[in-house]
Amino acid sequence: MENNIHSKKIWKVSTLETSTINDGLAVEEPLEIQVSFGQPQARTKKSISITMRTPGDDPELALGFLYTEGIIKKPNDVQNVLIPESLLPGMVNNVIQIDLSPDCIPDIDRLERHFYTSSSCGVCGKSSIESLKTVRMPVLKKDYPVFKREFIFELPNILRKHQDVFDQTGGLHASAIFDKDGTLLLLKEDVGRHNALDKIAGSGLKKGLLPFDQYILLVSGRASFELVQKAAMIGVPVMAAVGAPSSLAVELAEETGITLIGFLRDKRFNVYSNPGRIEMGNINHAKP
Amino acid sequence: MENNIHSKKIWKVSTLETSTINDGLAVEEPLEIQVSFGQPQARTKKSISITMRTPGDDPELALGFLYTEGIIKKPNDVQNVLIPESLLPGMVNNVIQIDLSPDCIPDIDRLERHFYTSSSCGVCGKSSIESLKTVRMPVLKKDYPVFKREFIFELPNILRKHQDVFDQTGGLHASAIFDKDGTLLLLKEDVGRHNALDKIAGSGLKKGLLPFDQYILLVSGRASFELVQKAAMIGVPVMAAVGAPSSLAVELAEETGITLIGFLRDKRFNVYSNPGRIEMGNINHAKP
Repeated sequence: MENNIHSKKIWKVSTLETSTINDGLAVEEPLEIQVSFGQPQARTKKSISITMRTPGDDPELALGFLYTEGIIKKPNDVQNVLIPESLLPGMVNNVIQIDLSPDCIPDIDRLERHFYTSSSCGVCGKSSIESLKTVRMPVLKKDYPVFKREFIFELPNILRKHQDVFDQTGGLHASAIFDKDGTLLLLKEDVGRHNALDKIAGSGLKKGLLPFDQYILLVSGRASFELVQKAAMIGVPVMAAVGAPSSLAVELAEETGITLIGFLRDKRFNVYSNPGRIEMGNINHAKP
Repeated sequence: MENNIHSKKIWKVSTLETSTINDGLAVEEPLEIQVSFGQPQARTKKSISITMRTPGDDPELALGFLYTEGIIKKPNDVQNVLIPESLLPGMVNNVIQIDLSPDCIPDIDRLERHFYTSSSCGVCGKSSIESLKTVRMPVLKKDYPVFKREFIFELPNILRKHQDVFDQTGGLHASAIFDKDGTLLLLKEDVGRHNALDKIAGSGLKKGLLPFDQYILLVSGRASFELVQKAAMIGVPVMAAVGAPSSLAVELAEETGITLIGFLRDKRFNVYSNPGRIEMGNINHAKP
């Protein structure tokens, strides 16, 4: 599993000091699952799913997806699992093709209903990020307010004080927008973290607050590629997550100019990209 | 937000005792987002997304989704937000229609690429569960092994000992299958929790281990409807999550006969459905 860890220089911030270290990020990349089916003389091929996954066990992932969705029912329903050679040396391959046996006739409607791809989701991370640039995205200015670390340490406490449903169920994700004085402007909760952030975006749109270019976004849980993409669309200069970011989330934050913070808890956090917006005190640099 | 909490009688298990209490579950239901667009004399309507969400702020969720996906760019791009009256009294409405203004011309390809629905995902929770029953699903037998609570307390510790990428990144979900002696049979990690479980399913299929009807499934994070659906497809009698379950996850577990465990940590857990497979000791019943 070692190649599923992407090494990255980060800034580790605590009340005492800031150090630069090399940290490991969980790799996130899209996988496109294609299915071919039908009689030998008339095979049909369909792309039925693109999922953001950690590479490794791709055949198991594709077979399991087809099985749990009821498309295949037994090992014999599959004739071949093909992983095309990557065209780029050293690149992970992000397409897999499952050839169904001629007597496994999938429900075409079901196959078609499964197909999903988001705007952000191409078949390799690079092309995903390129495709994103075709969408209008607010351009981040360089002269944003610099946020103090003591200020950032407090954000999860403020969030938790206002999370009413979470307190009663322990089961909701949250997204929140704060101004630079720490005032909570918007807070939305949902079982889905992307939904909580979409609710923030829609609320900002209705209230005429977009882009959120003077504010900081806090999200519960992890920072995925999808969440950073949404953050970029609403123009936040700083996005802080309580959990870990993925490799592709960090890459997108770097390219869009967002300052991405992760593991914000217990008066500590890590900065993964564009650290200039955070007051970090003296920095101890890692030994080379 | 009170109607986003669903009250449910559960069994709260610790080393000392088991009590029945009424607990709050975060509500999870599907929302279908429809978009209408075009000139007044020739409007087109398309369903572009079904997402599992917590009801509340549905207009914000739909508008935010359209905004972060680049389909709308300013408040004026939206003419109307329509929430059809629910046909069933007391039921939450799970469809929302956004009418784009005539001069907002969405990229049709982009719209179509967004459309997503999983097999499990109808427009109301009930119909989702009904539609699931059309898919072949292993029938759970009644005479499964009864798992001891001390055994269940230990599962997260065994999992963590084997989670190599998580240890280095803090950023991966995991799914694991244990036999009734606590032996770890399969462990898969992924940035997406549904992917980790699909990898387990695919691995079980390849190794001829399905259905997993003598085993227990452990998932990191929360138990969503989607994960319980996958668990039902692979035939596990007991599914344990480290985090909270959603309302729809519990409902599906009840209907499919799965024993659903949540908040499994620090030698405690909650049982949400079909408690007969867990040895729970003496039970203190809640006062009425």
